[in-house]
Amino acid sequence: MAPLGEGSDDPLLPDLPRGPLHAARARASFPWKELALFWEGPDMLRFKKNIFSALENDPLFAHPPGSLSLEKYRELNFLRCKRVFEYDFLRVEDLLGSPQRTFGSAIYNSGSERHFKYLPKIFNMEIFGCFALTEVSHGSNTKAMRTTAHYDPTTEEIIIHSPDFEAAKFWVGNMGKTATHAVVFAQLYTPGGQCHGLHPFVVQIRDPKTLLPMPGVMVGDIGKKLGQNGLDNGFAMFHKDARQHFSESLGSLSSGRVAIAGMSVVNLKLAVSIALRFSATRRQFGPADEEEAPVLEYPMQQWRLLPYLAAAYALDHFSKSLFLDLVELQQGLLGKDRSTRQAELGREIHALASAGKPLASWTAQRGIQECREACGGHGYLAMNRLGDLRDDNDPNCTYEGDNNVLLQQTSNYLLGLLVHRDQGGARIESPLKTVDFLEAYPNILGHRFEGCSPEDCLDSSVPLAAYEWLVCYLLRESYQKLNQEKQSGSNDFEARNNCQVYCCRPLALAFLELTVVRRFHEHVHQPHVPPSLRAVLGRLSALYALWSLDQHTALLYRGGYFSGEQAGKMVENAILALCAQLKDDSVALVDVIAPPDFILDSPIGRADGELYKNLWSAVLQESKVLERASWWSEFSANKPVIGSLKSKL
Amino acid sequence: MAPLGEGSDDPLLPDLPRGPLHAARARASFPWKELALFWEGPDMLRFKKNIFSALENDPLFAHPPGSLSLEKYRELNFLRCKRVFEYDFLRVEDLLGSPQRTFGSAIYNSGSERHFKYLPKIFNMEIFGCFALTEVSHGSNTKAMRTTAHYDPTTEEIIIHSPDFEAAKFWVGNMGKTATHAVVFAQLYTPGGQCHGLHPFVVQIRDPKTLLPMPGVMVGDIGKKLGQNGLDNGFAMFHKDARQHFSESLGSLSSGRVAIAGMSVVNLKLAVSIALRFSATRRQFGPADEEEAPVLEYPMQQWRLLPYLAAAYALDHFSKSLFLDLVELQQGLLGKDRSTRQAELGREIHALASAGKPLASWTAQRGIQECREACGGHGYLAMNRLGDLRDDNDPNCTYEGDNNVLLQQTSNYLLGLLVHRDQGGARIESPLKTVDFLEAYPNILGHRFEGCSPEDCLDSSVPLAAYEWLVCYLLRESYQKLNQEKQSGSNDFEARNNCQVYCCRPLALAFLELTVVRRFHEHVHQPHVPPSLRAVLGRLSALYALWSLDQHTALLYRGGYFSGEQAGKMVENAILALCAQLKDDSVALVDVIAPPDFILDSPIGRADGELYKNLWSAVLQESKVLERASWWSEFSANKPVIGSLKSKL
Repeated sequence: MAPLGEGSDDPLLPDLPRGPLHAARARASFPWKELALFWEGPDMLRFKKNIFSALENDPLFAHPPGSLSLEKYRELNFLRCKRVFEYDFLRVEDLLGSPQRTFGSAIYNSGSERHFKYLPKIFNMEIFGCFALTEVSHGSNTKAMRTTAHYDPTTEEIIIHSPDFEAAKFWVGNMGKTATHAVVFAQLYTPGGQCHGLHPFVVQIRDPKTLLPMPGVMVGDIGKKLGQNGLDNGFAMFHKDARQHFSESLGSLSSGRVAIAGMSVVNLKLAVSIALRFSATRRQFGPADEEEAPVLEYPMQQWRLLPYLAAAYALDHFSKSLFLDLVELQQGLLGKDRSTRQAELGREIHALASAGKPLASWTAQRGIQECREACGGHGYLAMNRLGDLRDDNDPNCTYEGDNNVLLQQTSNYLLGLLVHRDQGGARIESPLKTVDFLEAYPNILGHRFEGCSPEDCLDSSVPLAAYEWLVCYLLRESYQKLNQEKQSGSNDFEARNNCQVYCCRPLALAFLELTVVRRFHEHVHQPHVPPSLRAVLGRLSALYALWSLDQHTALLYRGGYFSGEQAGKMVENAILALCAQLKDDSVALVDVIAPPDFILDSPIGRADGELYKNLWSAVLQESKVLERASWWSEFSANKPVIGSLKSKL
Repeated sequence: MAPLGEGSDDPLLPDLPRGPLHAARARASFPWKELALFWEGPDMLRFKKNIFSALENDPLFAHPPGSLSLEKYRELNFLRCKRVFEYDFLRVEDLLGSPQRTFGSAIYNSGSERHFKYLPKIFNMEIFGCFALTEVSHGSNTKAMRTTAHYDPTTEEIIIHSPDFEAAKFWVGNMGKTATHAVVFAQLYTPGGQCHGLHPFVVQIRDPKTLLPMPGVMVGDIGKKLGQNGLDNGFAMFHKDARQHFSESLGSLSSGRVAIAGMSVVNLKLAVSIALRFSATRRQFGPADEEEAPVLEYPMQQWRLLPYLAAAYALDHFSKSLFLDLVELQQGLLGKDRSTRQAELGREIHALASAGKPLASWTAQRGIQECREACGGHGYLAMNRLGDLRDDNDPNCTYEGDNNVLLQQTSNYLLGLLVHRDQGGARIESPLKTVDFLEAYPNILGHRFEGCSPEDCLDSSVPLAAYEWLVCYLLRESYQKLNQEKQSGSNDFEARNNCQVYCCRPLALAFLELTVVRRFHEHVHQPHVPPSLRAVLGRLSALYALWSLDQHTALLYRGGYFSGEQAGKMVENAILALCAQLKDDSVALVDVIAPPDFILDSPIGRADGELYKNLWSAVLQESKVLERASWWSEFSANKPVIGSLKSKL
């Protein structure tokens, strides 16, 4: 491992450039390099550094000036994708968890041995795959997909057929321009008309030599999206025989959801890095006759941004820990583990991923918007990147399951545990222990907040206890409401729908917040945390916990956990106190999670803090900045005659 | 006036096309044309219809296929601006309140008679103006602007000077490419070095014959923004003599804020129109073995969208009523009214506009995001327009005063009334009566929610009473906290800053919400409301009121206005009941506020409800949809060699 800092030609963590942010860094209570090492570990730091510097040194990854057309953007993205294969940062076996893995992993997870022949072709880019599940009229409701696969035993052919435009496959990533093969999900019919449900089939959609569509396939590009326009989402309609079908049906989507939670956290980290460096160098107003203060000195600006910084750390830790849980699950699958524990682990991870993706993607979306606004007009300038982050994060709320729909998976899991316990008296416990506290459910419902000293309130154990009560309360409310609905004659479908808004939805979110808070709390209270980092990490943990909890204060009062004015004020005062304590650490905390300037790619967020110099340098680099408008003669020569078209009205 | 509907060649409100939305329309409890007439009045309906059909029939306003480059987009925008002059929809005297008015109205409001010579040139587009206030390092803090204006009495010249890049004027609308003249705000210095504060000066920045910059001016374009890219925001640095300076200083910005509130409401109306028409025609899941249900049938989808529909109506009424208040104020100014009432009216409108812009812009921003997500993947497709609405609405949160900074104006106004009353015993009252209830302040603080019958809870009078208590509570909290801060040694600046987050900010928002709720409540309970519309308007009013109030439930409990579980549940149940009641009216309510399809410009939001047909028709119209990628040979011929660049790492 290379040395951390100075004295080496290639330090793992080089010093940051001196500049206007130096003063803010000097006020930090902890050494940022030590936190970076604790947070990421030396292997990950080295891995990221390798990738970041390869990209920075390769002109293909230079930030293109101005806006690219959709076509040019997609070409560039394709060339970059090829280049990433050439760098081979990670061996293909390790690609699990990266967005490119879909087709290969669909083959791995759903295919039988006769499909393994595709794998080398995928890795040599002889063929390029896509995953065609959603149709134009159906996304979440996979059972209602209308593409058919008719099996003819005499010819042993399977005919894939799209009955009409509403059943076209739609929104399929890579399908618009690039993919040569698709895993197409269709309702399998055998002779006599029996339907065997949704099955996946490999269908060749384009000729790899020419990228022209195969006969029997109409395939195209769905057009411009709000973001992520490097990716060519497409549509296709079929009347074509498929090569062969997979043996397995649609598996669990947990891994996609865990990956999306991680992508959301990256977006949030980038946004808070930009906004906090800006806030530490942007000055506006001040006490009369004194120098203007950095906007970060205002309690309002701290309250707008620091909770999202804490959330970036808390959710980063959560998504990494959930990824490790998922690796354990997949190792069990590969080892053909058929134990009860393995099945329970699968259910628990499914429940965590189904609420983790919503929580992470929504927190990132709101956080990016807050960062945009907190940077004022400069946040609205495209070059500062907050717009791209918002646009690129946005679909995380939708794909691999709409957030609100997904949350039902988590609340169903929790309600199921309670039903199981009430019916059979089984203990409530799970492999990752996220639900074990529910065993004390009736007891916890009797807990009350008893007040605490101002210092005690600044620790995450206070909100942890409140969250346990809250989850039990919402679980009871959901359970009672569901039973009440059924007793008053609702069918299952109606009963579930009538319990979502104020019971099951907040239940799933509160449970996941509790899990995030607990994991972060435990992580920063481990004995091996370096002493110099304990205070700052403890504050981050408490701030995230209290700020999340504060969304539920109404329920804490309503259910009697809080009473009197002081309880609510305690939460507010603790949040403001933690913001004030973390303010001087915030630039160093950002230094730990911000990538190098080339990757962050935001003039107002550069590490040197030379806000205005960097901004001007970027503004003046844009095309035709100082040139007159190309259409100047339209102004000079052709003046409008007011009202000359009035007769046309 | 043309007849409302059938039987005429040119009806004011033509029937909407029959299609899949017909069934949803048929379930409405009221005739939508009658509500349109009540809501807008025949003159406004005719006015809008004229403009919409002129634009639809003019190829210059056709929606350009694909994405335009920044330059082409700005050229098109300029040509359209000229064309609008030619249509002369409104005589220039009436242009007050439209975004283009800035330069002309700066001349009207701040200029003296010698500036009136500019007016005909402006209206003939011989010159084109812009309003140059903000600098790259200062937006909100106008007093800290650093551009100077040195007056030389011997030559009677004024030299405008930008000391450095940080003092460059920045973000100036129209300055990037188009403007020939600017009203530049600068610190006025007289010989001897005395500074007289910020004054506006007319500076010629480009030659109107060539659009080339004038000597002594560096002027350019600040580049791409997140949205509103038809407008060329620019920057400028000066060392130049100004023509002459205005007599007046920077006036009130109320009119800009009122206009922005109105623009935000328009964005919200467009977004909810798209999302609700989509939700009434998009089907997903359903009870077992039955036809899939429109997603609007789900209580979750209703709860996500219908409160924003109610907000669009409530804020539409508020912004129109505030505009009329502003007209009254400006008539007083023109009539040289120097009465106490006129001064009080100015202060009250300033307070309403300073919180009205934040409330409207934030509600629209959140509502558009919710609509985007509620339309799933199709909401993320650029052609469906929710992305443009979000991007174009976003700066409403920032310009003419950052929302959080502006709210301080409103809370200062309210706190000032209380101080005044406590010191001199003056009655609390105001020309528009928005604060008169505060006269009963100590009495109201003793009120408690006593429960109500389920039907009574569905009326906006219940939340109105709760809001009055809430504003009084937050006013007392803010007042006490401010005094406490001062007593513990904070200076004014610190004391104010330490009271923002949990006291003054929610005070300003709650006061404005109360005002919006009250005005909407009174409007829909007038005796002349047609009987067929009373029920639906009453429900909209109650839904907006309860949904807004529900954000403050924690405070209602904390301060003792609510106690027990039932109070909080009452609010939730009432919101869900109102959503269920309004669900069948929602498509007709959207028909009233949605513009014609050409203006709405969203395939999934068209009035006929042919969701998938319209989507396909738009997808297939895009450029090169079915063509193979232009870079196909990069796929076919050049395969990556995995790891070939590994040595470069």
